[in-house]
Amino acid sequence: MTKTNTGNFFEDFEVGQVIRHATPRTVTTGDVALYTALYGPRFAVQSSDAFAEGLGYDRAPIDDLLTFHIVFGKTVPDISLNAVANLGYAGGRFLSPVYPGDTLSAVSEVIGKKENSNGKTGVVYVRSTGYTAEGTEVLDYVRWVMVKKRDESSPTPEAVVPELPESLAPASLGNAVPLLDMDGWDADLSGSPFRFGDYEVGERIDHVDGMTVEEAEHQLATRLYQNTAKVHFNLHTEGQGRFGKRLIYGGHVISLARALSFNGLASAFHVTAINGGRHVAPLFSGDTVYAWSQVLDTAEIEGRDDVGALRLRLVATKNRPCADFPLFKDDGSYAEGVILDFDYWALMPK
Amino acid sequence: MTKTNTGNFFEDFEVGQVIRHATPRTVTTGDVALYTALYGPRFAVQSSDAFAEGLGYDRAPIDDLLTFHIVFGKTVPDISLNAVANLGYAGGRFLSPVYPGDTLSAVSEVIGKKENSNGKTGVVYVRSTGYTAEGTEVLDYVRWVMVKKRDESSPTPEAVVPELPESLAPASLGNAVPLLDMDGWDADLSGSPFRFGDYEVGERIDHVDGMTVEEAEHQLATRLYQNTAKVHFNLHTEGQGRFGKRLIYGGHVISLARALSFNGLASAFHVTAINGGRHVAPLFSGDTVYAWSQVLDTAEIEGRDDVGALRLRLVATKNRPCADFPLFKDDGSYAEGVILDFDYWALMPK
Amino acid sequence: MTKTNTGNFFEDFEVGQVIRHATPRTVTTGDVALYTALYGPRFAVQSSDAFAEGLGYDRAPIDDLLTFHIVFGKTVPDISLNAVANLGYAGGRFLSPVYPGDTLSAVSEVIGKKENSNGKTGVVYVRSTGYTAEGTEVLDYVRWVMVKKRDESSPTPEAVVPELPESLAPASLGNAVPLLDMDGWDADLSGSPFRFGDYEVGERIDHVDGMTVEEAEHQLATRLYQNTAKVHFNLHTEGQGRFGKRLIYGGHVISLARALSFNGLASAFHVTAINGGRHVAPLFSGDTVYAWSQVLDTAEIEGRDDVGALRLRLVATKNRPCADFPLFKDDGSYAEGVILDFDYWALMPK
Repeated sequence: MTKTNTGNFFEDFEVGQVIRHATPRTVTTGDVALYTALYGPRFAVQSSDAFAEGLGYDRAPIDDLLTFHIVFGKTVPDISLNAVANLGYAGGRFLSPVYPGDTLSAVSEVIGKKENSNGKTGVVYVRSTGYTAEGTEVLDYVRWVMVKKRDESSPTPEAVVPELPESLAPASLGNAVPLLDMDGWDADLSGSPFRFGDYEVGERIDHVDGMTVEEAEHQLATRLYQNTAKVHFNLHTEGQGRFGKRLIYGGHVISLARALSFNGLASAFHVTAINGGRHVAPLFSGDTVYAWSQVLDTAEIEGRDDVGALRLRLVATKNRPCADFPLFKDDGSYAEGVILDFDYWALMPK
Repeated sequence: MTKTNTGNFFEDFEVGQVIRHATPRTVTTGDVALYTALYGPRFAVQSSDAFAEGLGYDRAPIDDLLTFHIVFGKTVPDISLNAVANLGYAGGRFLSPVYPGDTLSAVSEVIGKKENSNGKTGVVYVRSTGYTAEGTEVLDYVRWVMVKKRDESSPTPEAVVPELPESLAPASLGNAVPLLDMDGWDADLSGSPFRFGDYEVGERIDHVDGMTVEEAEHQLATRLYQNTAKVHFNLHTEGQGRFGKRLIYGGHVISLARALSFNGLASAFHVTAINGGRHVAPLFSGDTVYAWSQVLDTAEIEGRDDVGALRLRLVATKNRPCADFPLFKDDGSYAEGVILDFDYWALMPK
Repeated sequence: MTKTNTGNFFEDFEVGQVIRHATPRTVTTGDVALYTALYGPRFAVQSSDAFAEGLGYDRAPIDDLLTFHIVFGKTVPDISLNAVANLGYAGGRFLSPVYPGDTLSAVSEVIGKKENSNGKTGVVYVRSTGYTAEGTEVLDYVRWVMVKKRDESSPTPEAVVPELPESLAPASLGNAVPLLDMDGWDADLSGSPFRFGDYEVGERIDHVDGMTVEEAEHQLATRLYQNTAKVHFNLHTEGQGRFGKRLIYGGHVISLARALSFNGLASAFHVTAINGGRHVAPLFSGDTVYAWSQVLDTAEIEGRDDVGALRLRLVATKNRPCADFPLFKDDGSYAEGVILDFDYWALMPK
């Protein structure tokens, strides 16, 4: 019997099964500095203890996507080591602020599985939850992955497909943000005069800037998240593989696009929910990422006068500026250059 | 009206105007670790809490140039997003030690502007000040940039050109260094037996070592400083531009040269003033940086027996070792390979 | 007389000589984050304050190899600046846990020297010790390097060759680990169900995964350790040198292999002694590192019921997977692709 992790195959997952993941991870200001160096985010709440404290936070919380990547990374060895594809995610909720010093762990529950008609692979649905050492839940989300069967002749299980929300309900938003005192919101320091009331449904914003990605950068990031997916790190095998090169972790693209979105959405200080996301095409070292956003919806959150929620579509492209807001072709397929179609709720001061 | 920052044009600046910049930034030991990884500085005061405390600091202060880069980075979106060239700086003074945990913000005052005779661009002079959340000023400096006019037909304003000091006066130095107890200065740990009295005006020092720069390195650095100048990050556009590649942030060169200067100036533990600086030629990924220094002046600081000041010319080259101290050609233009000519005051133990 | 460090030559070393090295260095959570980003280690004790505290540590100690690299880096300017080759190390003992906030310094004693028969070089043996600002020894080890003579005509000194242990004795192990409460060891969080009793002498483990190294990565790492060896940083000279490119610091390979070894040795949470190590072949940017381990010995540690010791041979290769455990050819020379043969003791929960 091998002592090496060979990952789970389709047959190994059972609906209702709960998997506690290794490795617990204490988040520090070191991680925050690296996150800043990797993506260049400029949101004042996450950048400045003084700014965050002035609003009512204990100190600057870490970037929501840093929490996401760390929790996601823990699930990889158990959930997606034998994944053929990461198909999607939904229902992601940020539930509590995470501060430097918090230790994050993750647990996943298998909530569905369905064999594909080819008999070689199947889709596994898991709800993963990140929590602190004190047991506070900080994030949960559903993702589904296509996983290889260990043995093509093993019987087809009963299909269980969970019902997933198209979008999180406004009432469920805002858990990771304490009630804030918006007298402390300094527009000059925040980088923008525009607040919740200034954005309209349908509005599109080109984030203008582009960022070229290097191999060392995405490798540093992906290791920082203790994400062990082989395709990101091994030129020796990937050079012989489908793309002839290393594939960049999809979460790296989300973080780049989110950081670029500061230019136009500087007040959207908090990602509060992930409604869904699709990695439309792969990104490689040397490519330049651009992004644009569209306001899909706006919502008041019951009981809160401090913040409102914007539902945003965040689209990233490679090697294609976004002044013309590229998304779909006439035939409904994604336009040339589009690599990410991401749907989330952000909070903004009212 | 766009929500995206389009930057200020020549017409947008008025003499006397004060601009408060985004984003406040809490400096941490994470930033210090990255700064060490990016440049390899070995000055004991900034590297060791114990060494710094033994002299009278609260703990190890952050590298002076890290303070400079963070403050500088904040000014970019408002001052130099539409800059054609960063022409120079002068009158830079470090005013208070910066420790991990301090939150830095920046404000700039426009102190001069002068249209160029081509009617297309003009020069804008600003004095930028970095300060902590408690209001303590930590750095101020003047820089002037060539900025595009939005509209070439807009009228030529009255020219206002500030008087700038060629060099900071010795009496103004040392503000960022508490009175130190030099009994705590351990020469072995500091890396050099040479102190203030061992350096002579005119003396030249070759710093010997060379450091090759990679794209990932300067991008990590420049994002760490939340500096958003496009030319450093976007291969997709820069590949079609003047140089055909990304341009490295000039401050990256200063930090590399300063770190290299440890070999010969290990006791010059603090940059206390920036008299002036000129980026003579651009640096690109793959180039190797070398450096040498010349002692331009020495000065006692009134009321201080602990430290003296050396005025140093720090010259950096690319792909050219500095054993022959390259600077000018016979015709007075800069010698082949010279990329930086930087004039500063450093403090040394007496 | 030059103010620049020209390094020591063979004649400069005297048996019994003690050299106190610059620069003291306070280790922080920033260094820990960078170490994680550079290698991707997942050992729970070093990753999580909560996990470490549950066992009896004050908090998460830093990775043992980070301690090693920092101490090693300090010795370079005095010991190996003029080294032709780093021949080996032995007798390395980790003596006390190192936590963020500790300041590390290093001192070396020359314990042997022997001129080579060519009269141009000689071998110098030093025992280097790392210690905190409070004087606690955290690590000592012996290394020997081949150093150039300054002057080939200088007389041949009497040869002094220290006796070096082939392996550390089990009774000397475990100093850097407080007595632990293994009720706090959570197997799920640790990443493996296998403990001390599950490993057998002779057992071989393929660590499966491969990691490709980039120039920016090893340069960031080596500067983080304030290691100034020129061959790692200067393409301008190394491009003309023996290999035509920059050579990667050997310690970078050890850390990569150790991080890869988590897959199969997740419970081997602490490197407690370095018996010996040999860099069999150089590593360059673009190469992919793989690793495998063999259990050479197992040992109880007197007076301890919490942990046992595994003596492990850690072999790293480049561009060659390790499923067939490559080590030697039939003629006894190292197999194609082997770059590291490293012999150490690790601790595991019983």
